[in-house]
Amino acid sequence: MSKYSAPVNDMNFLLFDVFKADKFWQGNAQLAESIDRETANAILQESAKVTEGVIAPNSRAADEEGVTWVDGKVTTPKGFKEAYNVVSEGGWVGLAGDPEYGGMGMPKMLSAMHEEMMCGADLGFSLYSGLTAGACVSIHAHASEELKNIYLPNMYAGTWTGSMCLTEAHAGTDLGLIKTKAVKNDDNSYNITGSKIFITGGDHDLTENIIHLVLAKLPGAPEGSRGISLFIVPKYNVNEDGSLGELNTLGCGSIEHKMGIHGSSTCVMNFDDAKGYLVGEENKGLACMFTMMNYERLFVGIQGLGASERSYQNALEYAIDRKQGKGAIKTADKKPQPIIVHPDVRRMLLNMKALNEGARAFNTYVAMQLDIAKFSDDADAVKTAYDKGQLLTPIAKAFVTDMGFDSCVAGQQVFGGHGYIREWGQEQLVRDCRITQIYEGTNGVQALDLIGRKVAMDNGHTANLLAKEVIEFAKQNEASFPDELAQLIAAVDLLSAVTVDVLKKASTNPDELGAASVEYLHLFGYVMFGYMWAKMMVSANSIDDKMLAQSKVKTGKYYFARVLPKIMSLKLQIESGADNLYQFELEDF
Amino acid sequence: MSKYSAPVNDMNFLLFDVFKADKFWQGNAQLAESIDRETANAILQESAKVTEGVIAPNSRAADEEGVTWVDGKVTTPKGFKEAYNVVSEGGWVGLAGDPEYGGMGMPKMLSAMHEEMMCGADLGFSLYSGLTAGACVSIHAHASEELKNIYLPNMYAGTWTGSMCLTEAHAGTDLGLIKTKAVKNDDNSYNITGSKIFITGGDHDLTENIIHLVLAKLPGAPEGSRGISLFIVPKYNVNEDGSLGELNTLGCGSIEHKMGIHGSSTCVMNFDDAKGYLVGEENKGLACMFTMMNYERLFVGIQGLGASERSYQNALEYAIDRKQGKGAIKTADKKPQPIIVHPDVRRMLLNMKALNEGARAFNTYVAMQLDIAKFSDDADAVKTAYDKGQLLTPIAKAFVTDMGFDSCVAGQQVFGGHGYIREWGQEQLVRDCRITQIYEGTNGVQALDLIGRKVAMDNGHTANLLAKEVIEFAKQNEASFPDELAQLIAAVDLLSAVTVDVLKKASTNPDELGAASVEYLHLFGYVMFGYMWAKMMVSANSIDDKMLAQSKVKTGKYYFARVLPKIMSLKLQIESGADNLYQFELEDF
Repeated sequence: MSKYSAPVNDMNFLLFDVFKADKFWQGNAQLAESIDRETANAILQESAKVTEGVIAPNSRAADEEGVTWVDGKVTTPKGFKEAYNVVSEGGWVGLAGDPEYGGMGMPKMLSAMHEEMMCGADLGFSLYSGLTAGACVSIHAHASEELKNIYLPNMYAGTWTGSMCLTEAHAGTDLGLIKTKAVKNDDNSYNITGSKIFITGGDHDLTENIIHLVLAKLPGAPEGSRGISLFIVPKYNVNEDGSLGELNTLGCGSIEHKMGIHGSSTCVMNFDDAKGYLVGEENKGLACMFTMMNYERLFVGIQGLGASERSYQNALEYAIDRKQGKGAIKTADKKPQPIIVHPDVRRMLLNMKALNEGARAFNTYVAMQLDIAKFSDDADAVKTAYDKGQLLTPIAKAFVTDMGFDSCVAGQQVFGGHGYIREWGQEQLVRDCRITQIYEGTNGVQALDLIGRKVAMDNGHTANLLAKEVIEFAKQNEASFPDELAQLIAAVDLLSAVTVDVLKKASTNPDELGAASVEYLHLFGYVMFGYMWAKMMVSANSIDDKMLAQSKVKTGKYYFARVLPKIMSLKLQIESGADNLYQFELEDF
Repeated sequence: MSKYSAPVNDMNFLLFDVFKADKFWQGNAQLAESIDRETANAILQESAKVTEGVIAPNSRAADEEGVTWVDGKVTTPKGFKEAYNVVSEGGWVGLAGDPEYGGMGMPKMLSAMHEEMMCGADLGFSLYSGLTAGACVSIHAHASEELKNIYLPNMYAGTWTGSMCLTEAHAGTDLGLIKTKAVKNDDNSYNITGSKIFITGGDHDLTENIIHLVLAKLPGAPEGSRGISLFIVPKYNVNEDGSLGELNTLGCGSIEHKMGIHGSSTCVMNFDDAKGYLVGEENKGLACMFTMMNYERLFVGIQGLGASERSYQNALEYAIDRKQGKGAIKTADKKPQPIIVHPDVRRMLLNMKALNEGARAFNTYVAMQLDIAKFSDDADAVKTAYDKGQLLTPIAKAFVTDMGFDSCVAGQQVFGGHGYIREWGQEQLVRDCRITQIYEGTNGVQALDLIGRKVAMDNGHTANLLAKEVIEFAKQNEASFPDELAQLIAAVDLLSAVTVDVLKKASTNPDELGAASVEYLHLFGYVMFGYMWAKMMVSANSIDDKMLAQSKVKTGKYYFARVLPKIMSLKLQIESGADNLYQFELEDF
């Protein structure tokens, strides 16, 4: 696989030209202390150095070697331990962590960019630190001060990793069905017993301890998802002085053999009266876990983008190197030309580029909402940003990974037959990226979350706010790109009309929501990427880097001409309603 | 992986209710002798028995074991040799072969269905016999009587397999660049020297001999594709009495490690003054090879469908077995319900079903054109059918595999996390199916072939004929499904208008063809599948099997409501023209 090049240039453009992050940071007391433009740029440069130089070089070999499980011991691929040490020693796990517990207190806008670089360098590897950061979010939000003091400093420091133990064999999407039990001890600890599957980083050889966040049920707890509690269950018990004690009564029962992310251990975890500590309140565990899940969902979107960016870089290099055919661009000699002259190769590359850069802008926009919600002192701004973050999280997870997967497939296609050969790495990116559409709530579940919880239950309020924001932006900047901005306004109007229409139909038939959900999420996603491209095009007009400016404007025009029109078909598919799905009896399938 | 169930019921419906194959066969002197409805059904039943019972059970383990290459010897996975013997002894390789050389003389409509079952059972395994049948087509059409007598009987009998040796490291799509040399000997044989890559079935342990069809250049041959000749190069030389002689001076230099089709050997083949025999005329080799390539392209489409059908069957079974959540269909109890009640699961399954059955009908329709062209005595009918077959071949290859891949991805998604685990087989189908979009001419090359050679160079003549046929059918049957048939007419009109528009633009800027090509192929494909669904719906009205009839009508309505609307966006993307692709300089990427 080719060298990975972290897209630092584009990231700086997004932070400071498009989203004016420096102004936001300067205007906020808490952030102004810890971050400014120079620090941010230095962090991006350092992250690029680590991901390009230390992590990316392992990714191809790690895919071939995979994780092994021998005599109950999980071993990660060659080079992972050394690379992980660089990550933890660099303080990268605690980049966005609370400084009170040893974190660096950086905004999500910045840590999301670091995460993208990690995923672009090696998606499988990125999960060990990525999930740890996510687990910290949940512990920080819900655990007692005592637990926070024990666990957060070691997790931010990367000396301990975290895992999420949710799924059981019979309970995936429907966590209300879990059977893992928790019984309270006299010392306020709990004994946890049960078996969890698909546990990413459930066991490995990178760190001395692993902190599991485990969902379990207390005796007599209410049925379903209202009776779930969340526990910290460490692999090694922690003594009062902070040193590690005995191995807890838990272990890895086996590892899964998967399509991709071979460097990431996916474990069956067995808990046998393992000692655990309640996080938050009894029976409120699902809410505590969702704090982490929402964080993870944005991270999963970032994973999709990371893989897709890597695929684009490889494909572009190949398209310039590989010579086949005469192509549509005429030259005087008769020599074969680089395949980038062929229209379909250009189409594939430009789709990837337009979607990747749109996704990077969108992730940054969502991260900014999370930052405003977390750091702002203005209660109204906090509420609006929080709502927008909630609304857009399923899109950041599902739309970005759906586009990321399609782009990885396109990036493989550019290689022709070589794309199918493992050695070149393009097929690995397809296999790695594929999981992002599945885990942390399948993309179908995200679509239901968007249209049901985030739009219908909110009566379209936040979606309307967002539509207003986009139209206001478009009208203010109409003069600079009249065609594209008019198209954007029309796209927002179309989305709003579809929203009204679906909510109206759903008031008499709730199935209409589910029937529209996936196409609705895609429609929403394309419109949001249109907004992002409009913002980037307008910002490009006033930057010094003329080469970047020109590329942004051309790619934006490409997006409006060739990608955004996809919404017309989505609208028709949504309008076809629920009947075509529900006319089928079982025997008709 | 679940059991494979050959879709014999649907195949019988297509042959006899939709396409009235029995009438066509009875009306043709040559076919009337060898095939009738009962024979066809018996062949389908027997093919189902072999593919379900003998081939399918190996597929999962073969993916894990793969092909090995040790000390220059290629070994196929466990069970392949036994299964291959059943295939060859059953006469399946020569199913459509010329009876004069030991073939069974069956029409393509029927052999295509057998091929689908083979691919559904195990795509990787199906290539050994599938490519052999393809090689026979080329030898039969172009080789001398002497060569035909030596090679065809053994290849039809399956005792020898065939391979296509085209690609070289620097020459894939652009075969004009090949460097393999052929030097003529005094005895009219040739010495072939060069190295070929990506050779499917280049070496293996299934048969005693392998017959390579090799592209090479004679000394002083014209440059580019006009200087290519085609040769038969047997692994073992064949003595005059038909017995095997010495090993030819050729060998497998290594095998590729691929994303999927692990049971299929993909070889680097080295020829070192290996003895070969000219097929057809010197320097006319590419045309000879294309006889095989066109046959293979339909076969590749069939592969995409085979994998996708298997994925659908698995996904349907899982969706009925797996219980999660309460779902949109209300029940009195509060128990979790099979996930098939959820709208998105239904949507994924129905997309797969509508596309698979549409593809099966379309493949059968294309095969019927090939049969008419091959067997009919009516010169006009032969010409029309030949032209239609030529026009539709790139769609059968590229559109069917693009849809097949998307369906395999959807079938994996239905499984949630389990879809990502190798054990369940759904991810294997994604990996296996992926190659079908790449080999035998990438789908981008197919799209250029369609819009350039088959539409533009023909001035839209055959496309118009086809449009007329569809509209005539729709008007004749308007009364039975007025909404859908009106939609079909509108879709054909849209396709025709887009064709006129693109050809007009291309008259001043040839790049417009390439720029429109992929979306144009998809637009054409969706319209053709609409035609197929209209035919199936109309035919379903008059069959005795009421359960099948009802399913066909519902699925057809689903196709028109939820799949065909995709053409609206494709039209807009095509209309955006070539400029958005060609405005980019290299530094803008």
